[in-house]
Amino acid sequence: MRVFIAGLDGYLGWSLAQHLTARGHEIAGVDAFLRRRWVHEMGSWSATPIHGMPERLLALEDHFGVQVPFWEGDLTHYELVARIFAEFQPEAIVHLGECPSAPYSMMDVEHALFVQRNNLTSTTNFLFAMRDWAPEAHLVKLGTMGEYGTPNIDVPEGFFEIEFRGRSDRLPFPRQAGSWYHWSKVHGSNNIMFACKLWDLRATDIMQGVVFGTRIDEMAEDDRLLTRLDFDQAFGTAVNRFCCQAVIGHPLTPFGLGRQKRGFLPLRDSMQCLTLVLENPPDPGEYRVFNQFQEVYDITELALRVEAVALELGMQGETRNIENPRLELEEHYYSPDHQNLFDLGYAPSDVGDELRIMLDDLARYRHRIEAKREVLIPDVRWDGRREKARFLDTVVHRPPLREPALRFEREGPTTEVTSPR
Amino acid sequence: MRVFIAGLDGYLGWSLAQHLTARGHEIAGVDAFLRRRWVHEMGSWSATPIHGMPERLLALEDHFGVQVPFWEGDLTHYELVARIFAEFQPEAIVHLGECPSAPYSMMDVEHALFVQRNNLTSTTNFLFAMRDWAPEAHLVKLGTMGEYGTPNIDVPEGFFEIEFRGRSDRLPFPRQAGSWYHWSKVHGSNNIMFACKLWDLRATDIMQGVVFGTRIDEMAEDDRLLTRLDFDQAFGTAVNRFCCQAVIGHPLTPFGLGRQKRGFLPLRDSMQCLTLVLENPPDPGEYRVFNQFQEVYDITELALRVEAVALELGMQGETRNIENPRLELEEHYYSPDHQNLFDLGYAPSDVGDELRIMLDDLARYRHRIEAKREVLIPDVRWDGRREKARFLDTVVHRPPLREPALRFEREGPTTEVTSPR
Repeated sequence: MRVFIAGLDGYLGWSLAQHLTARGHEIAGVDAFLRRRWVHEMGSWSATPIHGMPERLLALEDHFGVQVPFWEGDLTHYELVARIFAEFQPEAIVHLGECPSAPYSMMDVEHALFVQRNNLTSTTNFLFAMRDWAPEAHLVKLGTMGEYGTPNIDVPEGFFEIEFRGRSDRLPFPRQAGSWYHWSKVHGSNNIMFACKLWDLRATDIMQGVVFGTRIDEMAEDDRLLTRLDFDQAFGTAVNRFCCQAVIGHPLTPFGLGRQKRGFLPLRDSMQCLTLVLENPPDPGEYRVFNQFQEVYDITELALRVEAVALELGMQGETRNIENPRLELEEHYYSPDHQNLFDLGYAPSDVGDELRIMLDDLARYRHRIEAKREVLIPDVRWDGRREKARFLDTVVHRPPLREPALRFEREGPTTEVTSPR
Repeated sequence: MRVFIAGLDGYLGWSLAQHLTARGHEIAGVDAFLRRRWVHEMGSWSATPIHGMPERLLALEDHFGVQVPFWEGDLTHYELVARIFAEFQPEAIVHLGECPSAPYSMMDVEHALFVQRNNLTSTTNFLFAMRDWAPEAHLVKLGTMGEYGTPNIDVPEGFFEIEFRGRSDRLPFPRQAGSWYHWSKVHGSNNIMFACKLWDLRATDIMQGVVFGTRIDEMAEDDRLLTRLDFDQAFGTAVNRFCCQAVIGHPLTPFGLGRQKRGFLPLRDSMQCLTLVLENPPDPGEYRVFNQFQEVYDITELALRVEAVALELGMQGETRNIENPRLELEEHYYSPDHQNLFDLGYAPSDVGDELRIMLDDLARYRHRIEAKREVLIPDVRWDGRREKARFLDTVVHRPPLREPALRFEREGPTTEVTSPR
């Protein structure tokens, strides 16, 4: 299948390029290298050293024997998108080319609007370019579980059948996002849903959980194939940051009470799921939503899990809660569906194995994390201030050591938090 | 109360300026005169001749004895919005400064993105400027009933309490808009809802029905006080267009089956409602949604009503359905709530009286409508084509002539439509 990957240079895009190529798909990609700039702006870099695109493309050729067409350019320019679609004639388009950071969007009005306009524009450009140049293609759009927020009811996959005052209808599930970034994804989802209805386009909107992991099998031992791994407050995600903290002996820092629940999945599972989605496209005119995560974990549960594996590997690990820079519920009901991907055959990886690989990989780049140590504590606050989060007085109740298991049991409170001194 | 009106030069903005000033409020305004440009781009002009802003401001001074501060500028520039808020210190902000046209947004990718980016940016600028310069102010944002689409269940005012799988929550009512423009209003609503939660701002989001009318009482007989009245496909709305058609003997042209139901309200009722909203602000942190319309009518019902009044006044009037350029359900359930404004004291005007005034006003400008006669038939189609809609073979079942009544009875089908020859 001819798959066009927007955001080829990114964490997911570069991994997907290898995963799909190894499975025999014909890929092409675009990137404007904005992610590199944004991370630099946050005073950080990737923990894994990443190469320039020319070296990356050569590595693909060396390992997989293919020359991958690549365009350098900005997806907010319609003419670029249209030209690429006309030339490559994609059968599927995976949109991983958005700005993916909540804190980045929360810094000020310029960043809020940059993220919303950038993400909305590229997505909308794709829809028009599909209408005009690839009407049969399947758009796979990366959204986020964060589009839903944390409602007090179960979260279905995009739509639900409800009864209201004696009548019923199947409606989009209401979104209650928690940052300008997360809302940018909602705006994009809405535009896609509309375009599918309007022009009979087909799309899968992936509400993805938080991804963690340093590698997929295809990366083997060639450093040029490594994907980026960010650990700054804006582009690093929870488990990735915990692992980076562990390898340099920095405390692992859940926000606030640390009892927020979120869906998580390893990078290799994300690749598996995206591939299942691509190889099982929806019908023309169909807009479907998949919730893509392995399991719901609470944040402290995962920090303790990283801590345990770190100790096993002879590293330091201590979980210390910090002030929550975000505005979010810290104790809440959370029960999202995620059956669609299991129905297509998704087989989850073992989280313990994944953490071991990650800590092992990251230990090689300890000096790179150490050099940017100061980015491990966030300072972008949802109330508009820039001020480093302080450590909280924390008593961590450690669960008894267990064999690594795929799913942690829910055990009630594991952490008690009091206000800062 | 110090009320800042964004879009002072527009159909609603110019009317509201007079209405609020007459009630003793202190107003200021901004406009970039984009509406004038857009209507020109559509090959049209206002049926009512409108003056330049210097003359308009002088007319306000002559009639109401006030000098209204006015800024010419683009609301997508944050610095402008912030400067105005800092200088004027508004207690309320009425955002009427967006691009309000579905067909304009449906022309091509440039127009779709212009409308979405323009509207989203100005709204978001207001939110940040409120946070920083007017945190106590009340934002009154003009949305549209079109944000909801036409679900098969009742439409509450913004939020609903639902039960799902044995649990319940109060959630935003799902939006299913029908054009890039309507989605731009949804995107804006979502941003406002988030900002109220985030920064304790207060806002009323008005889901307004289709407004019609040439004047409010304050305009008296001074032509400088007249507000614009558009009749082109993009900026003219249903009843206004029907009236313009009637005064030049052009057929009145409901789209498709003409049985679409929408909420409508006269211009004077819109002013009354906006004033009620302003004078009864929500609490800090409250994001409330009002559905603002007088009554639900089906489109043909209103065309026949205009026709009847036109005949009364000795004008020609004939209703002839045309191809529907839009993608929309032409027969559907529609039962939106609109109790909030009635609870605040909204007293609806008589529709028949309003139509008589409109036809009388517009007859004076017959030559201006005649000169742009070709804009009365739409050519912007939702499937992406530009092609004039054709007349359909139509048999109109006329309801028996009745006394003008505030509310039309629902009488089942009034029109039979077959395909174009």
